Amino acid sequence: MPVIQITMSQGRTVEQKRELVQVLTRESARILKTKEESIRVLIYEVSKENWGNAGVLGLDMK
Amino acid sequence: MPVIQITMSQGRTVEQKRELVQVLTRESARILKTKEESIRVLIYEVSKENWGNAGVLGLDMK
Amino acid sequence: MPVIQITMSQGRTVEQKRELVQVLTRESARILKTKEESIRVLIYEVSKENWGNAGVLGLDMK
Amino acid sequence: MPVIQITMSQGRTVEQKRELVQVLTRESARILKTKEESIRVLIYEVSKENWGNAGVLGLDMK
Amino acid sequence: MPVIQITMSQGRTVEQKRELVQVLTRESARILKTKEESIRVLIYEVSKENWGNAGVLGLDMK
Amino acid sequence: MPVIQITMSQGRTVEQKRELVQVLTRESARILKTKEESIRVLIYEVSKENWGNAGVLGLDMK
Repeated sequence: MPVIQITMSQGRTVEQKRELVQVLTRESARILKTKEESIRVLIYEVSKENWGNAGVLGLDMK
Repeated sequence: MPVIQITMSQGRTVEQKRELVQVLTRESARILKTKEESIRVLIYEVSKENWGNAGVLGLDMK
Repeated sequence: MPVIQITMSQGRTVEQKRELVQVLTRESARILKTKEESIRVLIYEVSKENWGNAGVLGLDMK
Repeated sequence: MPVIQITMSQGRTVEQKRELVQVLTRESARILKTKEESIRVLIYEVSKENWGNAGVLGLDMK
Repeated sequence: MPVIQITMSQGRTVEQKRELVQVLTRESARILKTKEESIRVLIYEVSKENWGNAGVLGLDMK
Repeated sequence: MPVIQITMSQGRTVEQKRELVQVLTRESARILKTKEESIRVLIYEVSKENWGNAGVLGLDMK
């Protein structure tokens, strides 16, 4: 029943998301010895003003 | 202090969300023997290109 | 594909969790007009030293 | 490696988010005795129809 | 800055977790065209009484 | 209604968690111009085998 939640910056293409869901599901099923059918993937997209690293907003990074 | 987080596909009406918050809060309070006042509900809506099941993107499902 | 995540204090019985999963799934499916089969529930239990309300640790509440 | 995730109502300014990321990172690093570099902050904004308190939708609160 | 959060049943070995972190990081970096250094993985283990599928507690599944 | 969720390595003291809840609530309320009463903090502790950075398990870091 693994649930995989990915939070990432906005702006990836549908093709990237499709491959991400496909590959992360396949690899997780293989490693965890579970069926692909039991795996769910959720993607949360956040804009650059909605995340920070080391105290710096994504928007302010170079 | 239960916090209930629901991730679901975009497109539900305000009426559905209102009932969801109301009913999930009432039932959780009853079952967990806590006050409704202590329960918070958060809804995260994701588009069909942002979730997958069994390795297939929501967008590609029939 | 709704995923329901509940964070709550430790110490509920298996019977409470069983009813919580059953009732929240049934009510969410009814309100969201989706199948119960598509709903997943995840419960995260935290001890009283791992949550706070209004700036006060659960452990310190009366 | 602390990851801090904040879910809050939409509508804060970039300046508020910048200060939030900066201050929460600095204070967490200080209290947890870890480096600011290791701390990541993620902000999830939800509209007033996507959260509820005590069974009441944010939209319906006065 | 992708953050990958996996919720799964308890009981996997350290070897499985090590491979999961390694492979999911590598594949996500490749697909999302980002550096492995920017990816963080968090694993939440839940016991069989703390998740449900289709309204049935994991503990009660056959 | 901000909800702050912190995922961090196991092993912090109650005193550290108490200060973390207190300070993060106070600072968030100040910056977001909301009441401390409306802020909830949840702490998720994970062991070193349950997180990874740059593809390396916390357990394997030096």
